[in-house]
Amino acid sequence: MYGAGDVRIETVQNPTIQQPTDAIVRVVAGCICGSDLWPYASKPASTVGARMGHEFVGIVEEIGDAVSGLSVGDFVIAPFVSSDGTCDFCKEGLQTSCRHGGHWGGTHEDGGQGEFVRVPQASGTLVVVPAGFDEALIPSLLSLSDVMSTGYHAAKRARIEPGQTVTVIGDGAVGLSAVLSAKLLGASRIILMGRHKARTDLGIEFGATDVVAERGDEGIAKVKELTGGDGTHVVLEAVGLLAALETAISVVRDGGTISRVGAPQFAEVPLGFPEFMRNITLTGGVAPARAYIDELLPLVLDGTIEPGKVFDRTVGLDGVPDGYRAMADREALKVLVRP
Amino acid sequence: MYGAGDVRIETVQNPTIQQPTDAIVRVVAGCICGSDLWPYASKPASTVGARMGHEFVGIVEEIGDAVSGLSVGDFVIAPFVSSDGTCDFCKEGLQTSCRHGGHWGGTHEDGGQGEFVRVPQASGTLVVVPAGFDEALIPSLLSLSDVMSTGYHAAKRARIEPGQTVTVIGDGAVGLSAVLSAKLLGASRIILMGRHKARTDLGIEFGATDVVAERGDEGIAKVKELTGGDGTHVVLEAVGLLAALETAISVVRDGGTISRVGAPQFAEVPLGFPEFMRNITLTGGVAPARAYIDELLPLVLDGTIEPGKVFDRTVGLDGVPDGYRAMADREALKVLVRP
Repeated sequence: MYGAGDVRIETVQNPTIQQPTDAIVRVVAGCICGSDLWPYASKPASTVGARMGHEFVGIVEEIGDAVSGLSVGDFVIAPFVSSDGTCDFCKEGLQTSCRHGGHWGGTHEDGGQGEFVRVPQASGTLVVVPAGFDEALIPSLLSLSDVMSTGYHAAKRARIEPGQTVTVIGDGAVGLSAVLSAKLLGASRIILMGRHKARTDLGIEFGATDVVAERGDEGIAKVKELTGGDGTHVVLEAVGLLAALETAISVVRDGGTISRVGAPQFAEVPLGFPEFMRNITLTGGVAPARAYIDELLPLVLDGTIEPGKVFDRTVGLDGVPDGYRAMADREALKVLVRP
Repeated sequence: MYGAGDVRIETVQNPTIQQPTDAIVRVVAGCICGSDLWPYASKPASTVGARMGHEFVGIVEEIGDAVSGLSVGDFVIAPFVSSDGTCDFCKEGLQTSCRHGGHWGGTHEDGGQGEFVRVPQASGTLVVVPAGFDEALIPSLLSLSDVMSTGYHAAKRARIEPGQTVTVIGDGAVGLSAVLSAKLLGASRIILMGRHKARTDLGIEFGATDVVAERGDEGIAKVKELTGGDGTHVVLEAVGLLAALETAISVVRDGGTISRVGAPQFAEVPLGFPEFMRNITLTGGVAPARAYIDELLPLVLDGTIEPGKVFDRTVGLDGVPDGYRAMADREALKVLVRP
């Protein structure tokens, strides 16, 4: 990506092992993330392109001397950050704060929207799919890289308990994954705020009990009406805009929790005296996908969940620029890339 | 209180039962709260005085026909808000959001800095001290009305687990109660940020393992230094100023929780993208003291805790105006009132 709206397909050198903890992975499938749309909308033009993509599944091609638990030929899932798996943060399940972690893409690292990736800290980062390669499972396995794990993070951080009521704000792929996650944790009522019917229909399939298409004050009034004026115990915010967080504050019940996983496009949160008097909690953040893959992978393998349904378009590498456009235009929900 | 700095002692009519759910309590002891200092500093002058005081213990003088669980002559603790004890919020332990709750003082209700109080929703609000009247226990029982319960709320909302590290910001009576509460919940290290030696000495007695007297960037650097650069798992914020919350954000460990019980004197909280990437949680709020009295009262009665040590001055009613001055001038930590 050279700037807003400017995505190009270029041939670069294949990566090589640089550290003994590295692995080289041949990408079987990558995808375009809702968060990729922020730079696609606003990145200043540059003469240097940034490699893109932070979600992928693939086959291990080569491993460094210090890599354990992985073999050449393994089918693996890469979470959207790398992590060593041994530091205190990793052991606590907060791999996004790993003391030796890193990000994919940019000018120095390979991205998942490509053919090969050098994976640092490969032993800590990659998760082997025990069942091996399975074409049919690719979308759902790929969703564990980021989008499903992010929705699940929202639900887990909110500590949803069986029987609680939940509002999910946003009908993007993360919002829909949050619906599926709230359902997994036993929420009795899941109100999905979104206005794209094809998406909210998938939300209903994932477990939403109500859909509110209205936004702003009208949407807030609708959620209040559905909940006897109180709002819901939990709100999962999967947008990242201030208006979404303001809606969350308005529709959360006193004593309740807002869990946010939309990357905030703002610096200040309106949590002053009125919210203090209502005992509102704000939690969430960037998702340590690695922490949840062990838990979610068996549910994908046994068919309990099919989070890969959020992918509604597949392109080859040449189709990536148009894939960005289609997602930005809300024509596609989430685009899968097969290089 | 007629305005900032203008506290007067006046004779008003004794309260009478107005609703069958009321009780009349003769105040044995009340006190001045840190939160009373906000209007003492800034309340616009008025021709109508506001009755003050929201913490008291006393003797039940009279009860309405619908009051149960209370008898004339009972020695009782009044939490700082009234609550019916029967609504869903009360049953969940969030009595501050009670559907029929109310506040003490102001122009329509009696305050605890006086001789008698009409207590609405008396059955739900008042807690009988099973051991009966005990002069020596008055300070600690009174502290359960607000200050100790508020410190405990901070610790409980933060879900402090045994072995965790905690920073407490503020060496006022609530901050010191938060130290005692963190200790009760098993925190292994409690860093108290405060600069008044007499107060931080009491903090050490309550369980603080370290005292940081520096403020701002210097204070932040000191806490970081004490924690290997990481900050603490939990921060209990007992001030309510933006600078204190900013310090909290800087000294909390990635993935950690800030629990605030200082009433916010600001409308916006700086929890944007950097804090999102660190997975910081903000919780806390006004304390449902009623929820904690059942739990803390036995610990006061058996001598496990002595939260009443935060009172360092006692005055009669005539001494209340000077009590406000002494607390505002940081000459007294917390002033007990014996009418």
